Amino acid sequence: MRISRIAHPEGMAFAVVEGGQPDGTGATCREIAGHPFGEPEFTGRSWPFEDVRLLAPILPSKVVAVGRNYADHVKEVFKKSAEHLPPTIFIKPPTAVVGPQAPIRIPEWATHVEFEGELAIVIGKPCKDVKRDDWKSVVLGFTIVNDVSSRDLQFADGQWARAKGLDSFCPLGPWIETDLDFAELDNLPIKAHLTHDGATETKQDSNSDQMIKSIPEIVEWVSSAFTLLPGDVICTGSPAGTAEMVPGDSIDVEIPGLGHLVNPIERY
Amino acid sequence: MRISRIAHPEGMAFAVVEGGQPDGTGATCREIAGHPFGEPEFTGRSWPFEDVRLLAPILPSKVVAVGRNYADHVKEVFKKSAEHLPPTIFIKPPTAVVGPQAPIRIPEWATHVEFEGELAIVIGKPCKDVKRDDWKSVVLGFTIVNDVSSRDLQFADGQWARAKGLDSFCPLGPWIETDLDFAELDNLPIKAHLTHDGATETKQDSNSDQMIKSIPEIVEWVSSAFTLLPGDVICTGSPAGTAEMVPGDSIDVEIPGLGHLVNPIERY
Repeated sequence: MRISRIAHPEGMAFAVVEGGQPDGTGATCREIAGHPFGEPEFTGRSWPFEDVRLLAPILPSKVVAVGRNYADHVKEVFKKSAEHLPPTIFIKPPTAVVGPQAPIRIPEWATHVEFEGELAIVIGKPCKDVKRDDWKSVVLGFTIVNDVSSRDLQFADGQWARAKGLDSFCPLGPWIETDLDFAELDNLPIKAHLTHDGATETKQDSNSDQMIKSIPEIVEWVSSAFTLLPGDVICTGSPAGTAEMVPGDSIDVEIPGLGHLVNPIERY
Repeated sequence: MRISRIAHPEGMAFAVVEGGQPDGTGATCREIAGHPFGEPEFTGRSWPFEDVRLLAPILPSKVVAVGRNYADHVKEVFKKSAEHLPPTIFIKPPTAVVGPQAPIRIPEWATHVEFEGELAIVIGKPCKDVKRDDWKSVVLGFTIVNDVSSRDLQFADGQWARAKGLDSFCPLGPWIETDLDFAELDNLPIKAHLTHDGATETKQDSNSDQMIKSIPEIVEWVSSAFTLLPGDVICTGSPAGTAEMVPGDSIDVEIPGLGHLVNPIERY
């Protein structure tokens, strides 16, 4: 099931995207009566996919992110081996979250902003101290996140809150897939395609099999520190290939089974 | 006006604490009809202060904290001059927030947990890019925060999200004072008294006049990065004197005009 949050002709709602093509073309958006946790109840209203606009599929109370979870990315950003810089945890604020096609807006004082395409876990139940073997029981589904990062601020501040937490620096979407084959999670291609001056180049082309901490380990680790609430998002880390984006560019993060998360870059 | 959030005999509510002693003894808690932003409307119900329990005075959508904002604290923790380690920004998750008298619960794997008594700003209006001269227009009031910090995790992780974000690691209270004399903010004593084995010792004894970035500068800086929402909390940094707390201890952060924020320490 693909759970989305939509702007429709009469307002905003959670909706299930049914049928159609993998990108949503020709699908029907069936409005969910309340929240998307548990078995959804439907209002009976629906709209063609072409008549709605996708919003961020969830408004999380917190976005917890794993950093340095791919050895090749640790090397390209920090110039060090992942053995000496193990995975770490940081937090992106809810105000950073935007949806598909919403602009990533770069202030003038952030001078080197890169994309980071990642698989994101969406939590479905309040939980704490989840054992790795139980991780599936607390997960609603998966979506794509772009962990937008201003490298200049990241190194100047030491702490990553500003570098990765500016307004619009956490695009999420296009929807939450609840039926992703769990067996495939360990072997999921993750790609990012950057369009600059009209030319599109694939910059990230990796696979979730490169993660240092696996998804079950991440859920156990993160939930040992923080109570997680329904809708909270865990970003699982970025593989190598991150590169600078400038106003006028467009960035497309692609994960098969989840689709594409596309955002234009603008000057704030 | 002292805005509190209380558990009363019939439920929970925001309330104004009126009259009585500076510590609330003998005061009356007048229930607020809705939210505490703007001129409060009262339900007409009230309770004696002794019949209610104070909760965290606000549930923020985010807690933004300024680190390294007192030179003497930079030196004691990082063994470096503040000239080489300027103030930085980090984020504590909403799940870390607890109220007065709620236990700070330390897991066994956090092996060196310290208190950090700080003045906290509570935001009253949605805002972005606030100029320093306009800072008062977006502030609801002030409260006390204990920026509880596990030094072992802080240095092991590099990022401070876990060290300062574990459940219960953000005590707030006892209330939000909206009438603090703004002229006094630059000269406000900040103290922390640790009770260990029945003996109480004053460990922090500093003053807000030691801040590197002033309150107007902090509001400008933080709001240049993040949209701030009503109820969001900004922690203004800890002075020197932080020290370890262990289960069985009690920590009392005191700021004149705001009162005392007292929390016992327990094993998680």
